Order: sequence, then structure tokens, then C-alpha cells
Amino acid sequence: MEKFRFLTAGESHGKCLTAIIEGLPANLEIDVDFINEELKRRQCGYGRGGRMKIESDTVEITSGVRFGKTFGAPITLVIYNKDFENWQKIMSVSPADETDEKSFTKYRPGHADYAGSIKYHQKDLRNILERSSARKTAIEVAVGAVAKLYLKYFGIECSSRIIQVGQGKTEEEIHAQIDKAKEMGDTLGGKFEVIYKGLPIGLGSYVHWDKALDGRIAQAVMSIPAVKAVSIGENHAYKMFGSEFHDELFLVDDKIVRKTNNAGGIEGGMTNGEDLIVKAVMKPIPTLKKSLNTVDASTLEQTEAHFERSDTCAVEACAVVAESRIACVLANEILLKFGGDAIEDYNL
Amino acid sequence: MEKFRFLTAGESHGKCLTAIIEGLPANLEIDVDFINEELKRRQCGYGRGGRMKIESDTVEITSGVRFGKTFGAPITLVIYNKDFENWQKIMSVSPADETDEKSFTKYRPGHADYAGSIKYHQKDLRNILERSSARKTAIEVAVGAVAKLYLKYFGIECSSRIIQVGQGKTEEEIHAQIDKAKEMGDTLGGKFEVIYKGLPIGLGSYVHWDKALDGRIAQAVMSIPAVKAVSIGENHAYKMFGSEFHDELFLVDDKIVRKTNNAGGIEGGMTNGEDLIVKAVMKPIPTLKKSLNTVDASTLEQTEAHFERSDTCAVEACAVVAESRIACVLANEILLKFGGDAIEDYNL
Amino acid sequence: MEKFRFLTAGESHGKCLTAIIEGLPANLEIDVDFINEELKRRQCGYGRGGRMKIESDTVEITSGVRFGKTFGAPITLVIYNKDFENWQKIMSVSPADETDEKSFTKYRPGHADYAGSIKYHQKDLRNILERSSARKTAIEVAVGAVAKLYLKYFGIECSSRIIQVGQGKTEEEIHAQIDKAKEMGDTLGGKFEVIYKGLPIGLGSYVHWDKALDGRIAQAVMSIPAVKAVSIGENHAYKMFGSEFHDELFLVDDKIVRKTNNAGGIEGGMTNGEDLIVKAVMKPIPTLKKSLNTVDASTLEQTEAHFERSDTCAVEACAVVAESRIACVLANEILLKFGGDAIEDYNL
Amino acid sequence: MEKFRFLTAGESHGKCLTAIIEGLPANLEIDVDFINEELKRRQCGYGRGGRMKIESDTVEITSGVRFGKTFGAPITLVIYNKDFENWQKIMSVSPADETDEKSFTKYRPGHADYAGSIKYHQKDLRNILERSSARKTAIEVAVGAVAKLYLKYFGIECSSRIIQVGQGKTEEEIHAQIDKAKEMGDTLGGKFEVIYKGLPIGLGSYVHWDKALDGRIAQAVMSIPAVKAVSIGENHAYKMFGSEFHDELFLVDDKIVRKTNNAGGIEGGMTNGEDLIVKAVMKPIPTLKKSLNTVDASTLEQTEAHFERSDTCAVEACAVVAESRIACVLANEILLKFGGDAIEDYNL
Repeated sequence: MEKFRFLTAGESHGKCLTAIIEGLPANLEIDVDFINEELKRRQCGYGRGGRMKIESDTVEITSGVRFGKTFGAPITLVIYNKDFENWQKIMSVSPADETDEKSFTKYRPGHADYAGSIKYHQKDLRNILERSSARKTAIEVAVGAVAKLYLKYFGIECSSRIIQVGQGKTEEEIHAQIDKAKEMGDTLGGKFEVIYKGLPIGLGSYVHWDKALDGRIAQAVMSIPAVKAVSIGENHAYKMFGSEFHDELFLVDDKIVRKTNNAGGIEGGMTNGEDLIVKAVMKPIPTLKKSLNTVDASTLEQTEAHFERSDTCAVEACAVVAESRIACVLANEILLKFGGDAIEDYNL
Repeated sequence: MEKFRFLTAGESHGKCLTAIIEGLPANLEIDVDFINEELKRRQCGYGRGGRMKIESDTVEITSGVRFGKTFGAPITLVIYNKDFENWQKIMSVSPADETDEKSFTKYRPGHADYAGSIKYHQKDLRNILERSSARKTAIEVAVGAVAKLYLKYFGIECSSRIIQVGQGKTEEEIHAQIDKAKEMGDTLGGKFEVIYKGLPIGLGSYVHWDKALDGRIAQAVMSIPAVKAVSIGENHAYKMFGSEFHDELFLVDDKIVRKTNNAGGIEGGMTNGEDLIVKAVMKPIPTLKKSLNTVDASTLEQTEAHFERSDTCAVEACAVVAESRIACVLANEILLKFGGDAIEDYNL
Repeated sequence: MEKFRFLTAGESHGKCLTAIIEGLPANLEIDVDFINEELKRRQCGYGRGGRMKIESDTVEITSGVRFGKTFGAPITLVIYNKDFENWQKIMSVSPADETDEKSFTKYRPGHADYAGSIKYHQKDLRNILERSSARKTAIEVAVGAVAKLYLKYFGIECSSRIIQVGQGKTEEEIHAQIDKAKEMGDTLGGKFEVIYKGLPIGLGSYVHWDKALDGRIAQAVMSIPAVKAVSIGENHAYKMFGSEFHDELFLVDDKIVRKTNNAGGIEGGMTNGEDLIVKAVMKPIPTLKKSLNTVDASTLEQTEAHFERSDTCAVEACAVVAESRIACVLANEILLKFGGDAIEDYNL
Repeated sequence: MEKFRFLTAGESHGKCLTAIIEGLPANLEIDVDFINEELKRRQCGYGRGGRMKIESDTVEITSGVRFGKTFGAPITLVIYNKDFENWQKIMSVSPADETDEKSFTKYRPGHADYAGSIKYHQKDLRNILERSSARKTAIEVAVGAVAKLYLKYFGIECSSRIIQVGQGKTEEEIHAQIDKAKEMGDTLGGKFEVIYKGLPIGLGSYVHWDKALDGRIAQAVMSIPAVKAVSIGENHAYKMFGSEFHDELFLVDDKIVRKTNNAGGIEGGMTNGEDLIVKAVMKPIPTLKKSLNTVDASTLEQTEAHFERSDTCAVEACAVVAESRIACVLANEILLKFGGDAIEDYNL
């Protein structure tokens, strides 16, 4: 049931990240600058560390776009890693280059290291780190930016905001929290909100569980590295009476309107014409300067966790990734609902 | 990527609910009594209304099981609606029986009525109610029970509990809250937790976003009617420092152990050997005696919402459905990880 | 990429065959008589044996259709096996009924018995026979009939004809061949053709290999039990020069027309406006009175194959199944191209 | 149901062809030389034209392989187009570079031009040519080579041979036919056979139509550009009696053996332990020097088809592509049957 489909690939310190997108209609304008702005949005944010400066990601499109427009063919997006030259040998494809430089064996709590090394039978935990790293969300943001360009054609726009980080609930408080964590060599997560406006009524469905739009959004957001909770609409539904919670319908100037949006824009697994409101919780970044107890996989001895340069708080980036992931889900729903092989098919 | 796949069908007042399951290995023992016990668990719970007595659901297996065991063929599960004889004409397949008895046109806030009638071009909102009703979760519980039988073979077991309903946090308080709501003609939702124990390490993956187990679980649970939030592990991740949150690894008697499980059993989108802990929030049931403002679709006049016999609180049922949905996700993951055309292939 | 999706279930001598179809738009008229006529078409045909009289299949719709129309909900189709009462014990779900009556252990060459029993670890080959039997194509024809009703809405119609059976190429010759085979206790296959008319231009695509319509049709037809070859258009493409084979375009009365259709209606994996022409070859039915050498799985001794009542030639039925399978592929393509949640969305 | 999944992208004259493969287990050795040899096999063959010399394709792996082995992460394969510098402006992503150089408007019969331009609303037929070109099969051969490396681990090997081209049935005759066609400015197709040896019993299934291995193979082969027919096993099944066709089982030295393989290694949609034999027919290449009647899309006038440098006969290349496609299907089946996150899981 995926019409907007894509695969992504690439390691944190590999040559490049790559995505192939298949399913968009022809004659959609692809604004490369917009994709790059989205990549920049992901890299900024209070609390990001040094690597962000190295990165300054930009996308290269190597297929599927000609003279600024799609023409039906799959789109390839590539983001080159700027510091690959320093990693070329370490990340080499060739068996001749095998080295244990940059290899490590101390499981980092909160990361994929432990389960990943067992699952994939890897002794060098770098082989887990490289793909499990949140670095890969850069290419997902590029894919999401393409989806957003498609959604824009239908008048659909999105935004996001940070709700809370640690004890901080305002920008000033949040920055103070992050400063404090940084000073302590610690990290923080946070809570954020994504809002989509302009969605047509009836995306998603109740007719089969896997068509529910809320479910598809939940999958897309929960699978972002470090996200631990997702909610749609009002978060205190469990405390409220039905008569308080449900969004009544009113007739105003012959139009059906609501005065509340506790449902967050979704009833019966479908968009209902109100803004789509998605909240999510990100756990603290699991790579921190402060030492954590762990075990060394090679010696089976108690030790302390490995440290690799990282950020203090990445909740702003996470919100951008969530926007992007939701854009992909919505693009797919639009395609399922309206079909279309070319933009001309929509008669908007 | 679905190896355990299924479709469900059936209306709230139709002849029966049906499911076809495809993908389980041969020679799995299917205990019909267990499926029926699960159906009963869904129907019980403090706060359920009159229909539950009518129902007393039992499953009939019409394919895929012979002499108590699977043999590779798709399994058909059927739950007959006990009061179908009263609805036979109203839900008739035949155009000759067309009637507007039991039809209605007043959108019920919180239900699929409004968006559904626009999406599917339906004037009689019964055509929306019948499939969007949570009645369909009965057959999902039956499907989940079959998945649980498969998981049991691997030593995987689950349980669930209610955390909060309204302001109530203990059984006594919860019942009092429900009694109060019932008296007021109102409804309540709640918060619950599902725990799975005995999962092998490494179900799910970080290598591609759609393989993340947390994402797949989030989809499965968020798409349950009335669920508005899903979380994995500790709910206050957004407030905690990394050094507080992450589950350190310790070596005890030459075994790697954890003293905490804030991650809820998932790191890097994979099971990590700890218990899987999923929490979810259910909104209050949107069918309530207390009147809600709404609009009549046929007259476009302001009116009050339609009332159909219902429950005051169904959070216990919702928890059983969540268990079932997660069972399906886990069964699929086990099949992807271990393959297997027959139980004999596992060599457990 | 499946929007028209379905699962089927049921054994040759089980209680019933069942299918669930999900994905059709609302307000499509479902003519039950048409489905039953299609079932009858499958059962007739020169060369069918005794069981066809027992069968006289009719469909029961237990969900998804109300007052003659779809309304978005999944559709359940059931075909009851008329002689189930004679098989109730033998095909029982209950372990208490276990019996070796009607069990068998002699692999039937040409059937699934040998590979199936190894794959699914079954000693009683009945557990293979029951699902591998072509009996299951009855419910596929019912599913295909529903797909055809959808296609009819777009003005798409199909037909099929037998091209050759044994050495026979005319009806008279074909009947003579079948009579001769029957007399000898032998069986025959045949070659047939399915034609679809009225298809819009541009179903399927060349942009990714799994979107090619010819590939999807080939899968649908080749997976019919006993089909061994599928072709699109002119069969002698390997002998012809490019200048002979390719269908030139001409301008006649300001319209683009072709004078030939060697491509069989598909260029670049897409419908090109000409009739879709699919040919297929069915192997002889592998259940024959004439004895075949085989091995007994229980004793590992050389023996002769088991005989179960069967037909002499089922190529006409096979053609109906092929029509049905192709209808499902085309319905899916129409849904992907045009979207649509209700018939009203098409503005035809 | 795809565990071995991949997307491909890239235009005939674009910068590069790209593929992302997801689903292979970790610790599989990836021999880049083998992939390049496969690419060379596709480019050679009697009857190929000038471009083949330009190409001399080689693959670059930019993700998913480290020190010669997979480690669970998706694999990116890139084949750069050697003459891209000559096309850089013509195939530019930037709207600023828009040009009608190399654009064309005369539909080429036998190509995707006509249906493709209508489907995707393209005036410049180059936008159809670029992706519909068989050039894209180069990256499919690279993907298939990776699949073959996986299959080799299980002892599965393949080969292919040309059966007939025009009237030629021996190498000498075939070369003569091709020489003649070339001289006439014409083209030829042909018939070829792919054989896979060493397959385990029980890949694929009869339990649901879309699990039949013969169907999946038929899709994979029929969707290759220019393929018009696919068959499994003996091609004359429609002429033979059941007693002649079916492959009897014999007990020789306590082992079950067959003396014939008319079924081509598939019974009941499953591998049966015999060699898998797939035949296919390729139509003549539709780009020929000899002029074909056609219509100009821009002027709607009768004209003659556009000529772009091409081959006389590409049936050898087509056979290599078929091998590759089938390798992907089989790799997927192996993964479904045996699961496995790392090579160590197989215990071979």
C-alpha cells in the first residue's frame, strides 16, 4: 500500500548518504534550494555539537529530475559526507584495507550497540554505530523535503515547535537547561509538536487497521532514533470526560466548524479537516561525556562507555525529522486518494 | 515485509466478523479455547455496557487448522454476531431490502461519521458506523490470540494493566470514576500498559526506518480505535538527563544485566533482552448519553448527537486489543528473523 | 503497491472457501448473479469430471456490501463446499477427531505432494492436497468477478478462448482429443488466450521493474495451478525482424491508429490503447487414472500414484481463472492510477 | 512479503545508475570483481552496437559493505555513465539549463514513447526514452550479482544459453542471422533459457497465489524490457498427455530421483529438487535503422520513426538480465524460508 516509496542508505562516516524515491507524479517542480534549507534546519538548533559545522549538508540529485521537474522516473538524492577523506580507509569497501583503527567494543548504553552486535554478529561495534547513528536522518529530511514540495502543491504546510526540554518550557529556560547539561557533560531530550495545516478531509481510513493515518504517523515518528512517545491531539485524554474531550460540530455561516481540536485533526483514523497535531518525546542523546557503566564485549569486563563527539540536545533536529517523516506518510496518502501520474491529472 | 499477514472484515451488526491469516508455519497447535478466552477478556472489564452480554463471542475456524494443528494453509476465523437476526434486513446485501430503518444523519463528534461520510460519499451514516465501530476489534483479538499461540512456542508471554482512568489510579478509584461517569451519562478513557516478556534479542532493526520495532508497535497500537498516544518505556524521558535515563550494563555472574529498563526493552529499534513495555492512552468513548452539539448532514441544521447503546469505559478491552496487535507485530518479526515453514524448523 | 488487495483461504474438502477483498471504492454496485455466473463458467467446460456437478458453486457475501453496493468496508466472499458433510470428520479442526481415513502417502507426480510434504513437514499428504488443489481457484474467480464489476464501470470487458488442446485446434478436434484422453484414462492441458478491451492508456509503467504491467499479469497467470507458460501478444517474436514485429502508428482521420497488435497491447510495460492479449499454456492435469510411477513416503518403496476423482481437461476453467486473476491486476492498476474512495470520485 | 528489497534509479544518459539493496544478512562476502564480470557479461554478446564500448560498466559501492563484507546496512551500488560529460547540459537537473537539444517528438513504435508521453504528460519524448531505455538493466545486473553472491553461499549456481534467434538455432546460424539483420538495418530478438541448479526443495508455495515461485519468476522475467513470453520447463505441455508430461518418481539407491524434468523444477509453485528451467522470448529491438511509420506528437503528422544508436540483437544481454532478476527472486525466497540476520545464523 505504499505508492510513495523510498529506500535510504549510507553510514555516518561513509562516502555519502543516498536515497531513491519512487512514486511521485511527473511535472512536479523540485526546488533544490528548498531541500538544502530543510537540511540546514536539521543541522541547526541550540545544543548541537561540533560536527554540525563540518557537515553543512547539501543534496545532489542524480536522477529523476530534469530541468527542474520530475518526469516519472525514480529520484536519487545524495548527500556527501564532507569529512569522508579522513575516514576513507576506516570505512573502506575493500577487504585489503581492513584495520581496527576506530574500532571499539564497549557497548554504549541507550544505543543499538548491544542488541545490534548480537543480531548482526559483529565484534567491531563501529559496524553497528555507523548505520544506527542519527546521521542517517539527514537523507530522510531530504526525502521529506521532496514530499513537502508535493504537499505544497495541494496547499499543505507544516511547522514545528519545542514544548519542553528538561525542566525548561520557554526558549530562555530551554537554553539554560541545555547550557547546564553541557557543562555537566550530560545530555537532554525533549518534547516537541508538529502541525500540518491544509490537509484534505479523509486521508487514512478506519476500514482496516493498517490504513489508519494516526497509526502510520505513529510508526513514522516513533521509528526516529531516540523518540520514545507519540501522541495525536490533546495529551490528557485519559483524564477527561467524553463530554469535555470530543470536538463538537457547529454550523456557522452555513459551514461546519469546530471550536476545539482535542482530536488533533484525526477521527476514525482519518483527517477531519482540522489541523493535524502530533507531539513526540525524544529521550536524551545516549552519547555523553559523563561516563556510564557498561561492559566490554571483547574482554567481558566491567568498564565505562565509549565517547564519540556528539551533541547535548538535538530536539530541534528531531522535530525537523518528524516533520519530514510525516510528510512522507501524507504524500503517500495523497497519492493513494487521488492517484495521478502527472501533476496535470489533479485539475486543482 | 509482512510474513504474518492478515485481513479482517465485518460490520458491527453484520452477519459475522471474518479474518484470514496467512504466513504461520505448519504444525503449530491451535488451542481454540485459548482464542475464546481472549475474546472473553476483551468483553469483560468494569464499565462495559449491555451489548457485551449479547455478544459472548466465540470463534469458528473454517480453514487452515486440521486435527488441532496448522498445516501451512491460510487460517479463517469467524465470529458470528449473536443478534444478527434482528439486523438481517437492515444490513442486507440485497438492493431489494433497501430501507432507511436505523439510518441516521447526525454526525457523532469523536467518531468517523463526519470525515467518513465525505470520504466515502455516504448519506446514511450507518454505512460509516458499521465498519468504524470498535466491534471489529473482536476479530483482531482472535487474530492476536493465534499470534500469541505462536509466540508462546518461543516462550514469549504478555500481560497488561490499567494505569489510570480519569483521576483514578487504583482499582477502587477507577471503579468509582467509572460509576460517576456512568451516572452522569458521560464516558471515560484511560491509560494502560502492555508488557511482553521473553523476547529474543534483536527483533526489529535500525538499518531502515520501517524496520524499527518501536515504530511498528506504535502503528499497531495507535491505530486501535480511540487510542491517542503510545510510548515505549519511561514516560518522562523529556525531563531526564542522559545520565539518569540510559540503562547501564553490568556484569553479574559473567552475565550482562541491567538494573533499570527506562528504554522499555527497545534500543536502536530492536529488542534488547529486557521486558518490552508499551503504554497507551485511550480517549473517552465518543458515544455518550450526555448530548453533544453537532450538525445534521441531511438538513444542515444544528442539532444534538445520535445515541447508540454503548459502554462507559472500555480501557480494559482496549488493553487486550493492544496486546493482540502487538502479538501480530512480534509474530511477524519472529518469522522474519527465524523463517520457518514448519515448527520443526526451529530446533528449539 | 497493492491497493486492490485480497487474501483467500479454504481447503478442497473443507467447510468453505473464503476471501476478503480490501480496497475498492464505495458505491460500486455488486451484482451477485454476475459472480455466480462466473463461478458457473469455471465449472463448465468439456472434459470436467463428476465433482463439478456436486459443486454448483454460489457465493455468499457476509460483509462489505449493503443494499447492493460497497461502502468502503472490506468484502467477505464465502463459497460453501456442498459435500462437506461427508468430510466433516476428516477435515475436522478438533484434535479429538484425528483419523487417518482418507490419508495417503504416495506422492502424486506433477502435484505439490513431494515438495510440499518436505517443506511443511507433513506425513499425511492430504494436508498438502487440500490446499494445493485447484479447488481454491473457485474463490479466486469470485474475487475476480468483483474486480470485473469494477472494471466494467470503466468500460473494460474481457473474453477468452481455447487455442489448442493436444493436437486439436477446433472445437470438434478438441472434444475428440479430450474424449480420447478420457478413454485412455489420461489427461490433457491446452493453450488459451484472454483478451481485455477498453483499457485506458498508461496502466503499468517502465519506471521501475515491479510496476511493469506485463510482469504483473505474468505473475498472476503463471501462478495459476498447472500454468507453465505465459505470453503477451504475438508468440513468434523470436523469429521476426524488428521491421515485421513492431506495430507502426498511423494517422487516420486525425486519430492515431495501429494496423497490427503484435505487442499485445503492451509497450514499455504499459497499456498502449490496443487490446490486451495474453496467452497461456496449461499442463495436463496431474491426477490421472493411468498409473504413474512414484514412491510411498511412509514406506519408501516404489509404487504407483494415488488416484482421486478428477477431470480429463480443465483448460476452459483455467482460462476463466486467468481472466479473473488479470481482472485483479487491472483493478489494482486502475486504483493506483485514478485513486478514488467512492465511485463519485471518478467523474466519468 | 519482500525481504530482499531494492529500488533502482537512473537515466540512460544521466550521471549514473543507482540501486539500494536492503535485506541481506551481515557478514556476506561481496566480491566487487564478480559484480563487474557480470556487468561485462551483459555488455558483450554478438549483435551489440557501439555504445557497449563506451560503457564498460563498473560498479562503485558507496554503503553497506566494509572490508569486503556486509554488516546489515543497506547497500548502495552506483554505475557512472562514461559519456555523461557530453550529456550534462541535456540531462541537467537545473531549470536554467532547459534546452530542446536532443528532444524529439516522433513516437518510436515498440517503445514506451506513445503510452509514456500520454501517461506522464510529456511533450519531449526524451523524458520517456531516458528511463524506459534498457540501459537501466545494467544496475539490475549489479543488484542480481549481489543476490547471486548470496545464493552461492547456499551452493546455488546459474547459467543461461541462447536457443534461437530468427531462424538460427546454432551459434553459427545465429551469427549469420544477426549479420543479415544488421546489413538490412533491421533487428532481431530471440529465445533463451536460464537454468538454476542446487536450489533447496520448497522455495515458494501453493498456499496463496502470490507465494507461487513460478509466478514470481514470471513477473521478474516478463518485466524485462522486450521480453514477451516466459515458460517454466517443457514448452509443449499443451500438446502432451498427462502420462507423458509428468515427472515420475523413482527410488534409486534409497534416494528419490526423477528421470525427466518437464516441470522445470517447479511443482505446486515450489522448487522440487530438480533444476529450475526458465525460458523466455525477447522481441526484436524496437530501435532500428530501417524506417518505421509513425506519428509526430508535436505536429500530429504522419512521419518516420526517430533513430538513436542501438544494437542489432541483445538477446545475450537479456539472458544475463533474466539470470539477475531470477537471482533476486530466489534470494528473497531463501530469506523468507531461512530468515537470518547474519551468515552465522545458517549453520550450513
